[in-house]
Amino acid sequence: MRLEDEVRALALRAKEASRPLGRTSAEERHGALRAMAAALRAEAGAIIAANGEDMAAAREGGTSEALLDRLMLDEGRVEAMACALEDLVALPDPVGVVQERRTLPNGIDLARVTVPLGVVAVVFEARPNVCADAAGICVKSGNACILRGGSLAARSNEVICDVLAAAAEGAGLPEGGICAITTTDRAATDALMGLHGIVDVLVPRGGAGLIRHCVEASKVPVIETGTGNCHVYVHRSADLDQALAILLNAKCRRFGVCNAAETLLVDEAVADRFLPPALAALAERGVLAHGDERALAAAAAAGLPEGAVVAATEEDWGTEYLGPEIAVGCVAGVAEAVEHVNRYGTRHSEAIVATEEEAIEKFLGAVDAAAVYANASTAFTDGGQFGLGAEIGISTQKLHARGPFAAEALTSYKYVARGNGQVRA
Amino acid sequence: MRLEDEVRALALRAKEASRPLGRTSAEERHGALRAMAAALRAEAGAIIAANGEDMAAAREGGTSEALLDRLMLDEGRVEAMACALEDLVALPDPVGVVQERRTLPNGIDLARVTVPLGVVAVVFEARPNVCADAAGICVKSGNACILRGGSLAARSNEVICDVLAAAAEGAGLPEGGICAITTTDRAATDALMGLHGIVDVLVPRGGAGLIRHCVEASKVPVIETGTGNCHVYVHRSADLDQALAILLNAKCRRFGVCNAAETLLVDEAVADRFLPPALAALAERGVLAHGDERALAAAAAAGLPEGAVVAATEEDWGTEYLGPEIAVGCVAGVAEAVEHVNRYGTRHSEAIVATEEEAIEKFLGAVDAAAVYANASTAFTDGGQFGLGAEIGISTQKLHARGPFAAEALTSYKYVARGNGQVRA
Repeated sequence: MRLEDEVRALALRAKEASRPLGRTSAEERHGALRAMAAALRAEAGAIIAANGEDMAAAREGGTSEALLDRLMLDEGRVEAMACALEDLVALPDPVGVVQERRTLPNGIDLARVTVPLGVVAVVFEARPNVCADAAGICVKSGNACILRGGSLAARSNEVICDVLAAAAEGAGLPEGGICAITTTDRAATDALMGLHGIVDVLVPRGGAGLIRHCVEASKVPVIETGTGNCHVYVHRSADLDQALAILLNAKCRRFGVCNAAETLLVDEAVADRFLPPALAALAERGVLAHGDERALAAAAAAGLPEGAVVAATEEDWGTEYLGPEIAVGCVAGVAEAVEHVNRYGTRHSEAIVATEEEAIEKFLGAVDAAAVYANASTAFTDGGQFGLGAEIGISTQKLHARGPFAAEALTSYKYVARGNGQVRA
Repeated sequence: MRLEDEVRALALRAKEASRPLGRTSAEERHGALRAMAAALRAEAGAIIAANGEDMAAAREGGTSEALLDRLMLDEGRVEAMACALEDLVALPDPVGVVQERRTLPNGIDLARVTVPLGVVAVVFEARPNVCADAAGICVKSGNACILRGGSLAARSNEVICDVLAAAAEGAGLPEGGICAITTTDRAATDALMGLHGIVDVLVPRGGAGLIRHCVEASKVPVIETGTGNCHVYVHRSADLDQALAILLNAKCRRFGVCNAAETLLVDEAVADRFLPPALAALAERGVLAHGDERALAAAAAAGLPEGAVVAATEEDWGTEYLGPEIAVGCVAGVAEAVEHVNRYGTRHSEAIVATEEEAIEKFLGAVDAAAVYANASTAFTDGGQFGLGAEIGISTQKLHARGPFAAEALTSYKYVARGNGQVRA
């Protein structure tokens, strides 16, 4: 069979499974989640062994330490995957929720009721725990899922998916409801993106290149995730100690995550007081600053070693470094900060540090992003932190889901109308 | 300027306008809607004159009477457009709605608040009233809109858009918030579909060809609308008089609409009683039936004139006739009916006629469609009938909006987090 036909056959099987899966009770789905967690624990040895093969191949291929860390599974991480599945049980059932119900003037009883989307495809890169998170959230929400992991984790993903699919079927869910595309041939992802009418949504989780490719090539509706060129803006009214703590947390907690700050904006009025200690603290943590003229001057005034701050180019304002670098600029006030953020930001997470209410409300209202913060770190943009449990991803688009999204976002609704013979005039 | 650059410049102006527009109060937006309605009335003469030119050109081009009727504007229709704008004022404001709000364990106050999508593009065909409906719903929901009408109504659309845009600006809304692509060059639509990151959603309203083209070519997220291969299923427990009334209403009320029935399914157990009168009534109304063997036999038994029922082909089950034709088939019961509908339907509107509760619930639960009906006509799938006021369209996809959708569906949300210095561990 041609690869394209193979992917289509797999998706049709998932579609077939999605119909009975969409009508299971919460009890049945929760039973499956518990069985999936138990199976991960029981098969931890096999999973870790397969992951060991992936790790060895990745090391041989010269994969970076950061990526190796994302790829690696041990007892603790498998246990965390199992716990995440169990945690889903406690969350509310997103299926069958009556969102509205009323009697129309003609007597028809009209209800808007949530239903699963149907078939959810998740395309992801190195982290094999995404398999368990995505499969679990799909089971929770009554959806069939097609998992398409990166080649680096191919062996780990295959074993994890097999374990999860067998456990779900063993617990009574329809066969084919959890499936994986295991070939490392990239054409499989393109085939998946062509299955309009079979796959209901495609979620790319990964780097900017993967996401751009999906947005441009997919005929299946896409939920864009992830790219985060996030800003921390320090207003003239800010508590500067608090601002420094938020900046360092947003920038340095983890460099490679999408909710990390990539640009610092500072009001000119406090630049002389804030920038010298801020730039020194960043330099101390190994972060290279790309500053505008004002920031360069502040660095010189603070006696920072040459090279700790370099001149920013236009490109820096639009760059998601995902590493120990940051762009630093000065602005006249909140209006200019908002303009800068809306111009260069990626609609992910944006923070203002300020005490003046008017400035805070202006920033929160005018900045166009999935999450806007006053006096808190952008690092909180995360499904777990927001109380959703595990997440499918963090949407940076506005259609359907925005910000961290999980089971609720994997539902649609249908209008259910009950009449007694009504016809339209 | 190249056409592509012109469309881009127009969209960037709409994006620019969308920011202040998104922060207007409901009062400001309602004032604009009233001014837009008044302007339509004041300029009715100019609108009808421009429409007269479109009508003359369309007649010369040999346009069908059905299409001419869609295109035509007179005093009454302009008044109806104005009233539809005024009716929007009474509907709830979809912007700034706090969907959830809670205090996280770390003390952050987290709210999920609705916001406009930003820039909404609507691509439509012959009916110029769509201009006013779409512009009105976008103003109601704080969105900028780009209207791209069909070439048949080019003059009407241009005048209507100019009138609406001037009225909205006169009422204080930002310039560029209502704009139209007036060239009849089809490449403009393709240019619009490439503006990912500028246009937030594209809604094609029109025939299956237009919709398919948008789904396949658009990089901007699309909400699919319209195609309706709708079924009426008559269960063995049905009140057969009621079933006949519903069938005739769903099929014959208007032939060219997407919520019209295109297939009749009848339980074998009542086929002998239901089909003869049903086929006779359809034939009387000039509807050609494409029947399976059982339906052909019933037609013969009922003494229908030869040619009133012809043999159905496989293609008939999947056809949206949009005219005086219908496919007619027999099924063993509700399970086979559900399977047929889910196989051939377009997820639009589906009806069962039955008195047996178990059959009703099975059909309503298992059929995958935007609107499912028990004992009522599919003709009710409509924004006005569902209490939404005017509609942007009827979505047949599951992502973001399903069924008739209007102002509420033109919003997204953002997470607004207020802290006092929180950083993530």
